[in-house]
Amino acid sequence: MANIAFIGLGNMGSPMAINLINAGHQVCVFDLSEQAIAQVVAQGATTHAKASDCVKGADFIISMLPAGKHVETVYLSENGLINHIAKGALVIDSSTIDSATSINVANGLLEKDINFIDAPVSGGVGGAIAGTLSFMVGGSETDFNQAKAILDAMGKNVFHAGEHGAGQVAKACNNMLLSVLMLATSEALQLGISNGLDAKVLSNIMSNSSGSNWTLDVYNPCPGVMENVPSSNDYQGGFMVDLMAKDLGLAMDTAIKSHSSTPMGALARSLYAMHAANGNGAKDFSSAFELFSQVSTK
Amino acid sequence: MANIAFIGLGNMGSPMAINLINAGHQVCVFDLSEQAIAQVVAQGATTHAKASDCVKGADFIISMLPAGKHVETVYLSENGLINHIAKGALVIDSSTIDSATSINVANGLLEKDINFIDAPVSGGVGGAIAGTLSFMVGGSETDFNQAKAILDAMGKNVFHAGEHGAGQVAKACNNMLLSVLMLATSEALQLGISNGLDAKVLSNIMSNSSGSNWTLDVYNPCPGVMENVPSSNDYQGGFMVDLMAKDLGLAMDTAIKSHSSTPMGALARSLYAMHAANGNGAKDFSSAFELFSQVSTK
Amino acid sequence: MANIAFIGLGNMGSPMAINLINAGHQVCVFDLSEQAIAQVVAQGATTHAKASDCVKGADFIISMLPAGKHVETVYLSENGLINHIAKGALVIDSSTIDSATSINVANGLLEKDINFIDAPVSGGVGGAIAGTLSFMVGGSETDFNQAKAILDAMGKNVFHAGEHGAGQVAKACNNMLLSVLMLATSEALQLGISNGLDAKVLSNIMSNSSGSNWTLDVYNPCPGVMENVPSSNDYQGGFMVDLMAKDLGLAMDTAIKSHSSTPMGALARSLYAMHAANGNGAKDFSSAFELFSQVSTK
Amino acid sequence: MANIAFIGLGNMGSPMAINLINAGHQVCVFDLSEQAIAQVVAQGATTHAKASDCVKGADFIISMLPAGKHVETVYLSENGLINHIAKGALVIDSSTIDSATSINVANGLLEKDINFIDAPVSGGVGGAIAGTLSFMVGGSETDFNQAKAILDAMGKNVFHAGEHGAGQVAKACNNMLLSVLMLATSEALQLGISNGLDAKVLSNIMSNSSGSNWTLDVYNPCPGVMENVPSSNDYQGGFMVDLMAKDLGLAMDTAIKSHSSTPMGALARSLYAMHAANGNGAKDFSSAFELFSQVSTK
Repeated sequence: MANIAFIGLGNMGSPMAINLINAGHQVCVFDLSEQAIAQVVAQGATTHAKASDCVKGADFIISMLPAGKHVETVYLSENGLINHIAKGALVIDSSTIDSATSINVANGLLEKDINFIDAPVSGGVGGAIAGTLSFMVGGSETDFNQAKAILDAMGKNVFHAGEHGAGQVAKACNNMLLSVLMLATSEALQLGISNGLDAKVLSNIMSNSSGSNWTLDVYNPCPGVMENVPSSNDYQGGFMVDLMAKDLGLAMDTAIKSHSSTPMGALARSLYAMHAANGNGAKDFSSAFELFSQVSTK
Repeated sequence: MANIAFIGLGNMGSPMAINLINAGHQVCVFDLSEQAIAQVVAQGATTHAKASDCVKGADFIISMLPAGKHVETVYLSENGLINHIAKGALVIDSSTIDSATSINVANGLLEKDINFIDAPVSGGVGGAIAGTLSFMVGGSETDFNQAKAILDAMGKNVFHAGEHGAGQVAKACNNMLLSVLMLATSEALQLGISNGLDAKVLSNIMSNSSGSNWTLDVYNPCPGVMENVPSSNDYQGGFMVDLMAKDLGLAMDTAIKSHSSTPMGALARSLYAMHAANGNGAKDFSSAFELFSQVSTK
Repeated sequence: MANIAFIGLGNMGSPMAINLINAGHQVCVFDLSEQAIAQVVAQGATTHAKASDCVKGADFIISMLPAGKHVETVYLSENGLINHIAKGALVIDSSTIDSATSINVANGLLEKDINFIDAPVSGGVGGAIAGTLSFMVGGSETDFNQAKAILDAMGKNVFHAGEHGAGQVAKACNNMLLSVLMLATSEALQLGISNGLDAKVLSNIMSNSSGSNWTLDVYNPCPGVMENVPSSNDYQGGFMVDLMAKDLGLAMDTAIKSHSSTPMGALARSLYAMHAANGNGAKDFSSAFELFSQVSTK
Repeated sequence: MANIAFIGLGNMGSPMAINLINAGHQVCVFDLSEQAIAQVVAQGATTHAKASDCVKGADFIISMLPAGKHVETVYLSENGLINHIAKGALVIDSSTIDSATSINVANGLLEKDINFIDAPVSGGVGGAIAGTLSFMVGGSETDFNQAKAILDAMGKNVFHAGEHGAGQVAKACNNMLLSVLMLATSEALQLGISNGLDAKVLSNIMSNSSGSNWTLDVYNPCPGVMENVPSSNDYQGGFMVDLMAKDLGLAMDTAIKSHSSTPMGALARSLYAMHAANGNGAKDFSSAFELFSQVSTK
């Protein structure tokens, strides 16, 4: 079993750390919220007053932070963990950030012989609790293999996407694609409904035809078609519009920097931004279905 | 076994008629091309010099025609089949046309006690030959049930979408969705490639994540990722860009008439039109992948 | 002065007919609404119980009808005016309809030696009252020249766009372009506002730079920037969202039939349809500005 | 007359510096290219081996640099000009960069009592040579007024957009709008052409109607409609597609950070990126007209 430092105990980080504890690892946690720390310590974690003390002697350092600037500051700033992490340790950053920052942090740490992989996740809070997250990893084959046993305690799929930054790119690509699937499925269903079709009947036809896709098949955005999905629960829970908008911002940033043409993803970002600006930012992203509604009750 | 008249022996109609013959039905065929007739007669069909003679005494009349105006003329014009089809017979129109025309033809035939279903197909020429087409049927429950035994000889999925016209609407919705899936998958793969990812690796990650969709999973648009798909055969075969553009025209027509908002589908139509105008109309629609290419060889 | 029959006395037709009367023409009017007839008769028009009696002996027949099917029926149906209009007379159809129908009606009338031009207008109800409409004319040079004197009584700009149908195409192109100008101006202003700029200051800068366009310069969509425009009057008056959506439907129909790629216009149609479905169909089309609003009061 | 240091002598910077010299100012220039320096020195400028020596004693420091990172490094880095510019001097940065960097540099300089305005330009190389640029200025009223006399020597329009960063935001908004005007004008003209209209006739109609906009009226993208515009010169000269794509990247970055919905601008960025990836990056941006071409010669 491994010595692990876990930095960042938000909605995702806390259950991830607990799954590591339950798998038998020694986990020392740190967060700016004492309450968050207390909850995970109650499950068997240790802690220290300073993050720098947590990482000393750790074989693995896992971080789950809100944005690229936090990751850069935590690791590379003058008082950053770079000065405290042991040579040869492996940093696993599971934050969803831009790939350029991931690469920059990787290079900074490597100068001190600290290894790094970017390992953003998909699967949401539900997946974090259930230990069924997907990890998309960027880094060397060696580091990937070393990390896999640790990541398996928190997820069911661990993909090696490529070199440093590739995990972030893969997540940006997947979520950009997902965002369009949801919009395209929503407008297709609404077009059918406006022309008299039953949403369940049309969903069944398209799911068994070439329109089949994840949002239609297992996360149907039309209320009442499926049970146990956000659309049948007033679009509560799931993956928030605001978070999808953030991920699309990262995807667009990647597209701009690589001179890529992504008309569908670009349109998707603006439609989710429009939806969020109308007060729907905290709803599940399948509520994009409402953008195309013609019913008078909306 | 049934007496069937089959009108329209194009790339789709001929193999469909042959599958009916092979299932043991009596099939009388008609087309403007004598060559097309001869080929199906060689497989066991009968024919007559006039379509009106083919439909006399037929229990089922199946048509596979290029556009709504042909369907309207063949059935409802002054010299149309409406004056020759027996009362109580069932017309199965498998042409892909606008739902308004389908409803109009249905109503016209019903005045003479002739029954009608619209039953457009998906699955392409390959599916027509293999007898694995999907049928999306609009019409009454009774007519649907009566037609099902006949359609089963030509396809593996027969869906009842709703009342008259609903088959056309369902197909328009599905193909609009399909067209966007292909574009979104293409731009996501290209974004990854432009940022150093391997197309096979990224395809595998997204297929096993929330980006999963029919075009990514079984019809990958990036050359070399899958065998036996058009992208690995110079985009030959499959479903032509020109036909996708036609179907998107029908979907947009449906959207305009029902005041529906379909931003993704609308953008897709213009991108396929752009691709066709660049000389790619006869390629498989997965060649939309090339729209987002940054490689110098394009 | 000329003998003119005027068919269709809606919000546009009535003031147009009155301007013809005021210019000294003999005008015989017809509409399905007796009230509408009475109002124009009170200004000096004559009328008859049947439209067919109005057109007898008329040198010019002007029509202003809601849609292509009305134009086709009024002129070409079994009881249509084609059987009552004098040979050599000139039909001026100012309805905004699809060019294919215009061409069809032109050809039908020409078989009876009746001349035809399509002459859709822009300028709205205000322009109709003030006699400052623009006419976009499709038809022969001879017919255009003959019509010009009549049209000058109702408008200030009379353009010869080309052959039959060209007037409709020109209007579709112009209004598609206009619809995009309004959306692009709105999102640019909102982007500035969200980043702290004053809408008046930014409008002034862009109007004097390469962002200059009709919607920004004389019809600013941001409330308070200009006086006497709909945006400063709760988006009342002007050109309704529903009418813009109708015109965009015609433009898209034209694009589909000619296999044209119009991504901006296609996206515009869906955004106006979305706006209309949210209960804004009767507002002026500059209310599209609200689609991009981030203020909490919307 | 003023003492001015001018940093960055590219295609834009050199003629701008020369116009300052011609207006009677003392101008000390610096660039990494000795050739560029020599050309401007030949027109009357002075120079020094180090940029830091150029700015000593200067009342105004004008910079014209490629990207935000250059501006940040030149002014704020350890060896930056911040340590050499006199207190009370005014820095005028005419680079087109993101507003966040402008604000950051402004704040950094202000800590040393150095004043700053962002003053990006529009008008291109032609405007720089002719001294007819437009400046969009972000900064205090006092600094704007002080700068105006200097800027008047290089341009004909000097706009005060707002506080620090507002100049960059105004330019991003204007160029995003411009990019859409060009695409919308192009697709409207092509739609007309595909339906038989003459491009000159249609341009004239729309320019005199509500479709009027800068790209249609003075920079027509259709070859042969206007003389002396890039479209009539094989799309040579003017404003390059690559530069428009860069500006749209900045606009999208601004939109993402402010959670703004800009569907038209977002689609425009992807279309220009597509056009550039097809080998058209060095053409004038009006070559976007070719994206919508249906002629066989393309």
